[in-house]
Amino acid sequence: MSSPVENISILKLNSSGLTKTADKVAVEEPLEISLEYSTATGRMQKNIAVTMRTPGHDEELAAGFLFTEGIINGNESIADIKVSHADENRVTVILKEGVQPVLSHANRNFYTSSSCGVCGKASIEAISVVSPFKSITDSIRVQAAALQKMQELVKQQQQVFEETGGIHASALFGPGGTFSMVREDVGRHNALDKLIGHALLNNWLPLNKQVLFLSGRASFELLQKSAMAGIRLIAAVGAPSSLAVETARENDITLIGFLKNDRFNIYSGEKRIDIN
Amino acid sequence: MSSPVENISILKLNSSGLTKTADKVAVEEPLEISLEYSTATGRMQKNIAVTMRTPGHDEELAAGFLFTEGIINGNESIADIKVSHADENRVTVILKEGVQPVLSHANRNFYTSSSCGVCGKASIEAISVVSPFKSITDSIRVQAAALQKMQELVKQQQQVFEETGGIHASALFGPGGTFSMVREDVGRHNALDKLIGHALLNNWLPLNKQVLFLSGRASFELLQKSAMAGIRLIAAVGAPSSLAVETARENDITLIGFLKNDRFNIYSGEKRIDIN
Repeated sequence: MSSPVENISILKLNSSGLTKTADKVAVEEPLEISLEYSTATGRMQKNIAVTMRTPGHDEELAAGFLFTEGIINGNESIADIKVSHADENRVTVILKEGVQPVLSHANRNFYTSSSCGVCGKASIEAISVVSPFKSITDSIRVQAAALQKMQELVKQQQQVFEETGGIHASALFGPGGTFSMVREDVGRHNALDKLIGHALLNNWLPLNKQVLFLSGRASFELLQKSAMAGIRLIAAVGAPSSLAVETARENDITLIGFLKNDRFNIYSGEKRIDIN
Repeated sequence: MSSPVENISILKLNSSGLTKTADKVAVEEPLEISLEYSTATGRMQKNIAVTMRTPGHDEELAAGFLFTEGIINGNESIADIKVSHADENRVTVILKEGVQPVLSHANRNFYTSSSCGVCGKASIEAISVVSPFKSITDSIRVQAAALQKMQELVKQQQQVFEETGGIHASALFGPGGTFSMVREDVGRHNALDKLIGHALLNNWLPLNKQVLFLSGRASFELLQKSAMAGIRLIAAVGAPSSLAVETARENDITLIGFLKNDRFNIYSGEKRIDIN
């Protein structure tokens, strides 16, 4: 079975300097959930969703997803759940004879397999096709000390967080560490879309001369959106997922995680960081 | 314009006891993003997505979303962006004459308007239709002291978090505060689906005698999934959104936020909490 944890090699900066070390990241991989059920013309198999998940308990995930999304009524609908031998990222829930899924509920808030693809590799390659800034060059370099001040600078600007304690932020900084702008949202993908949307409407793209600051964790989705906008340097306060690291490495994006005022981890692209 | 912050009345428990107080939560509301563009038979308007967002900068959100999802190529594609006068939760991006959107990219990772509906109210009512446990009764009561111990108990069980620092957890507790089970995932909705899937496959549903613990923030989506499983008491370490609070109140779900070992906030359903 796929592991929920992946071992990678990273650079860790703290008060004793920069050291190469082994680290563990939470695995993020797509899971394709399919349904098999009866129709008037025989048994039917249908892809319902692809969700980016951490491997483990995939049968539970498939059953829980289908139930909480209103597609099946309960355990009494399920005849069997099968994980593909050939591909552990595919799971099929087989409904009992005569049980009909409620497919009108099967279209919210998840990847569909037609666009994402089951394989993380395919998803990453999909970025390359659509990003207009795939092959731009950049010469951005940022001082470690400038990165370490960013969280405090963003907090000073985060009005909604200040009032509610419950919101994500995406912010842009100049390479010298000068604050440029911030956007806030309950959805981290929305905060980033607002930021990139502002840049797009003001003809700032590509953002290959700015640093993107993320207030939380770095997922595949945020890396994918960043790559679309030509972003080359991302500093996140939280942890990255395995697929975020992989996407950063394949797209030559510098990825910093666990950004604090006295330390951070470099997961990819250390050439853009000045330590001193 | 809709505010990104909503004022609500809550109960706050800390060392000086329980007090009724005014509080602010980040607003979560659906935004419907539509495209208007030319076809061989004339101008066409098409709903692309509904995303749960915090109001503000909605034109940027729409433009950024369409660009980062690969549906439009850049600012040069856009003729205008209009927010509906009648409904601030609808925004239409009007493409220039001759510009075709890439609609094959328009089907991942967001609500579609057919299922979610633009109005939060409609979304909430949609739960009532599909949840088989809408009208179950419950008599669960939990001691404040038991709630305050939960985060530490979950951390002891969270293997992937321990190793990576980057994963969400959903856990179940008995009403006496006894740990029952935990599931972890990079996606908070997946962690909850795994937990509910486990309960479903073991015929534990409805979960109206358990406490659901969430390691992060409480969004509308998590409340909706919980309501589906008959959950009546949710304790989250992070902040709830406005729509999470509203969903809890309309579904008679007790919602605790900012759960720490010496304090928490009650957003809904205080009848189920024993303050020692």
